[in-house]
Order: sequence, then C-alpha cells, then structure tokens
Amino acid sequence: MLILALDFGGTKLAAAVVKKGDRHFQSYQRTLSPPKANSSTDIQIMRSLALELLNGEKPAAIGVSFGGPVDFKTGTVRLSHHVDGWENTPLKQILENEFQAPASVDNDANVAALGEHRYGAGINYESLCYITVSTGVGGGWILNSKPWRGSGGMAGEIGHTVVDPSGPLCLCGKRGCVERLASGPYMAQEARTRLQIDLNCGHILRRICQYQPENITGLLINQAAENGDKIAIEILKKAGWALGVGIGNAANLINPQRFILGGGVTKAGPHFWETVQQVARQIALPEVEFEIVSAALGDEAPLWGAVAMAEDLLNKSSE
Amino acid sequence: MLILALDFGGTKLAAAVVKKGDRHFQSYQRTLSPPKANSSTDIQIMRSLALELLNGEKPAAIGVSFGGPVDFKTGTVRLSHHVDGWENTPLKQILENEFQAPASVDNDANVAALGEHRYGAGINYESLCYITVSTGVGGGWILNSKPWRGSGGMAGEIGHTVVDPSGPLCLCGKRGCVERLASGPYMAQEARTRLQIDLNCGHILRRICQYQPENITGLLINQAAENGDKIAIEILKKAGWALGVGIGNAANLINPQRFILGGGVTKAGPHFWETVQQVARQIALPEVEFEIVSAALGDEAPLWGAVAMAEDLLNKSSE
Repeated sequence: MLILALDFGGTKLAAAVVKKGDRHFQSYQRTLSPPKANSSTDIQIMRSLALELLNGEKPAAIGVSFGGPVDFKTGTVRLSHHVDGWENTPLKQILENEFQAPASVDNDANVAALGEHRYGAGINYESLCYITVSTGVGGGWILNSKPWRGSGGMAGEIGHTVVDPSGPLCLCGKRGCVERLASGPYMAQEARTRLQIDLNCGHILRRICQYQPENITGLLINQAAENGDKIAIEILKKAGWALGVGIGNAANLINPQRFILGGGVTKAGPHFWETVQQVARQIALPEVEFEIVSAALGDEAPLWGAVAMAEDLLNKSSE
Repeated sequence: MLILALDFGGTKLAAAVVKKGDRHFQSYQRTLSPPKANSSTDIQIMRSLALELLNGEKPAAIGVSFGGPVDFKTGTVRLSHHVDGWENTPLKQILENEFQAPASVDNDANVAALGEHRYGAGINYESLCYITVSTGVGGGWILNSKPWRGSGGMAGEIGHTVVDPSGPLCLCGKRGCVERLASGPYMAQEARTRLQIDLNCGHILRRICQYQPENITGLLINQAAENGDKIAIEILKKAGWALGVGIGNAANLINPQRFILGGGVTKAGPHFWETVQQVARQIALPEVEFEIVSAALGDEAPLWGAVAMAEDLLNKSSE
C-alpha cells in the first residue's frame, strides 16, 4: 500500500511516496514556490509532483502538513501567512477528490511533532512538545502518545507566549513574545538596529554580512557569534533566554518528558543552546523534570509526520 | 455503595460520605488541623472523622485530595509545604489497609479540577484548566475529559510560570512568578510594604485593618479596594494582570475551552476580575478562544473531585 505525504511550506513544496511500514521514501520531490505563488499555483505544483512520484499508481492514504492554521476535523486550511488565497480552502476534500483516497491535513508544527514522536527524537516518549524556531516560532504537543491540538486546533503557540512584558513590540501587538526575541528575522532586525546605532560595534558581524546589513540572517548571526562577535553573541543569548523562559513555563504548566527543538535557528551553537538549557532549568520548578533535545528528522519532520497521519488513517479503516 | 471522600488541606481536614451516584453528601465533617499538626495527627484526626461518618459501614472506594505534591500512580504523598512529617507517606496504602477498600490519592488542584469537571463549572467541557488562587496559586488540567497530570505528576504549576522577569523575588528563587504577584499572602506583604514606605497613602486600607498592618489579608485588600483605596486597587489590579498573563500564555500553549478560577482571592470584585479577563484576552492570540469563569463548587471542589476519583475506581473494577 502506498502512502502519499505532502508538505506545503511557506516557500517550498515537498512530496514523498512511502510504502506503508517502510522507513525510507520510495520517491521524493521538492521545489520552491514560484515568486508570486498563490494557493492555486501551489496546489497545481503539488499535484504535478505527486502524480510524477506516484507514476500511475494510486495512494491508499494521504497525509498533509500545511504551514499555517488548519481546522483538523474538516481538513480546511484557515489561511497562510506567507501565500495568498488559502483562506478556507477545503484541502482535504480537494485531495480526496483528486486522488480518490482518504486524506488527513494538519498544521506543520503538529505534524512535525507527530513525525518526531513516531520516527525521530520522540520515539517511546508519551509526552513531548516539538518547537520549531525559524521564520516564526511554533509548537506542537504529543500528550498520552497522541497529538493534542487544543479545543480550537490552536494549541502549541509557544511563540506568542509573553516572556518579557516590557520587551520589544511583536507584530502580534504584544511585547516580549518568544517569537519576537527568538525568531530568525527578528534577530536579524535587532542586529541591524544595533549596528546602525553604534558604528564601532559588531565588526565581525559586519564583515560576515559583507558590510550589507540587509543581508543579515539568523545563520550569519550564528557564524559571527562563533567567531566571537559580541553583538551576535548577545542577540543569540537573548533568543536562547526567551526560548528558555517559554520552555520553562511550558514545563511547569504541562510537565512533558521532552522538548524537541527544530528549525533553522536551532542549528546555532553553544551560545544559544547552553542558554536555552540553563534558563529553562532555572524557570522550571526543581521537581519538574524534562529534557531539551534537537529534532532528529530535520526538515523532513513534517513529511514523516504526514506519513504517520496517513498510516493512522489506514490502521483506523482496517480496525 | 458508599464512597468515602477525604480532603487533607493545609490547615483544615474535611471528610464526606456519599452514596455512589448521589449528588449530595450523606454526611459531612470538617475540622481545623491542631496548631502543631504533623502527618500522624492529621491522619489520626481524619481516621476519627471518617469512622464517625461511616457509622459502622464499610466504604466501597475512597477518594483523597491532598494539599501538596503526590505521586498519583503509587498514591504516595511527596511532602506538604504546610504540615511536617508527610515526606514519602504511602497514604493510599495506609487508607486501603485501614478501610479495606481501594483508594485513589491526588493533589488538591488536580482533584478540584476533576470535581469541577464532573459536577461543577466544567460539566460538558472536554478541556479545562482549574486554577486556585489562595495562599498559593496552583492549577489542574482536564484534557480529553481526563486529568492530565504530566509525566512526573507536576503539571498545572501555573503559579510558578514567570510573567515578569524583572518583577519581585518569589520564594521559589525566581522573579515575577504568578504566585508572587497574585497569592493572598504576597498581596498582603506588598500592601504592608507600601503602607510603610508612604505614610500618606492607603487611608482606607489602614482603617479597614484597624491600623494593624500585620492583620492585612487578601480579603481586607479586596474590602479596601471596593471602598476606593488606591493602594488596594493597584495591588488587586497587579494580581489580576499577573494571573491574566499566566492564563493568556496557557491559552496560547494548550487552547483549553475554559479556565475555572477558585480560591479565596477569586472572591475579589471587578478590579480583579475585569483585569484578569482583559489581560488574558490581550495575551492570547485572537484565534485562541476561551472563557474564564468562577468555580461552581467553591471549597467543596476537592471533596467532589475525590468522590469522582472513587467512582472511577468502582466503575473500573466493574468493567
């Protein structure tokens, strides 16, 4: 039996075909969204990828990761913050009609949490919180070995928990959200501001961005920090602090066994990781035990989570 | 079939006997712990209360609420922050030996959450967070209509989530915990400090505490606030703000349907409640829906939760 796994990211589209029970992709395709993508072009491109991978065969079930809020029960995309036209798109229904197979659609953080739980750093852990720290900061829960989505499907928004009410203003309108302090673009923005204010600081970071602050990314900040740039180290430590407070608070509230961290920013070095670990440990009560580990599946976590959702559909129908 | 429900509070002991399926106590007793109570005296007193209530009959099952951390799986009390000698007491085993009936023991916030879920403000709600704001600030979760205790039984510690990292120091060693800002004794401490610093403020509060600041309690602060005392209003609003941030953060993380607030401090008026509601709504993302309501069972929530635990034991054994 073939499983079709789809990952609609903000800027990229990926698809894979897996034989039920296998732990490797039978075939795999990945492409960038075109510059002026909308929901129709994305669906069109994904359709082509899938048909090519399936090569005339029919999938038994489809699992889908979507980069934005999804109503899991109906499989309807609420919207995308990155691509136009997704408002209230019945993605599950569209795919079921197209491929004549049952489909399951959820948002990427929930799906990645499931992927890590079933095939990655969360195997044999009954409770975990997966956190992706990238363009934004999102999260997904596994409790009692099952996804916990919340009553309205909105659980896991650790990025918009407030850790410093007197901190900088976030796009969401609040001050000191985890996302405002720890996401890649906000770290880059902070670095640019700091370089602008004080012309005698951040020499290493300036060199690494080739004296073009608009080129600064989370990755370059990490490179500069590894090379001893003070501004870059401060910004990474502040990001680690914010994430650490968010994780410590979540540990006190829910007491999961593990926090699994994925996304570009978590590829940073010890300035970031040691701060996250230390601060989370300080914030959590001494009796609250947990581990913080790296994601094992990297960028493939959503696809493997999609595989798990499709397997669940098949196991359910054979019960 | 008779159910025996016990509530070991920090300063009081309560017991009730209920017929399985009934929604009123057949008999009920409540007493204060003696001044120099320890675990032995508390168990002794509770034993007397229970034997009197049972009047020669044998309970079919026992449910127990304990005011401190409990290992639910073994029914062992970890410790009490209020009464000496409870360290690692096998309370479930002691009660099962004494009464020759199965017993279930959990900490008071989890038990009260279950009580409100089964018989109070949480009926028909699949997911809720019960928060008691009193001497301390504790919480208990119901997710998928069942208690969520966390991997080590420590979930629900909303009182020690940090909402203001530059705030005042909490006994736990951190700054700006919800408990540090919203619990009754800390509010009273804050009021005493404010009255001491500025002799020209808080006239209404001074009068209400009969010019003896050591008499100030959360209740008196509320009375003073209702009568227009500025210091009292500020302190209550700060407490409401802290609890609101904690609730908003918890809503973003877990997205439960309801927050149910109990405990002495929540008997405060609109200065407190309106702030809690407004701040929680500001902190939660617009898509995250929830309600904040008063507990329906008041001080009896732990006893009714204990009844629910005992009923679950009976239903389990008849399966």
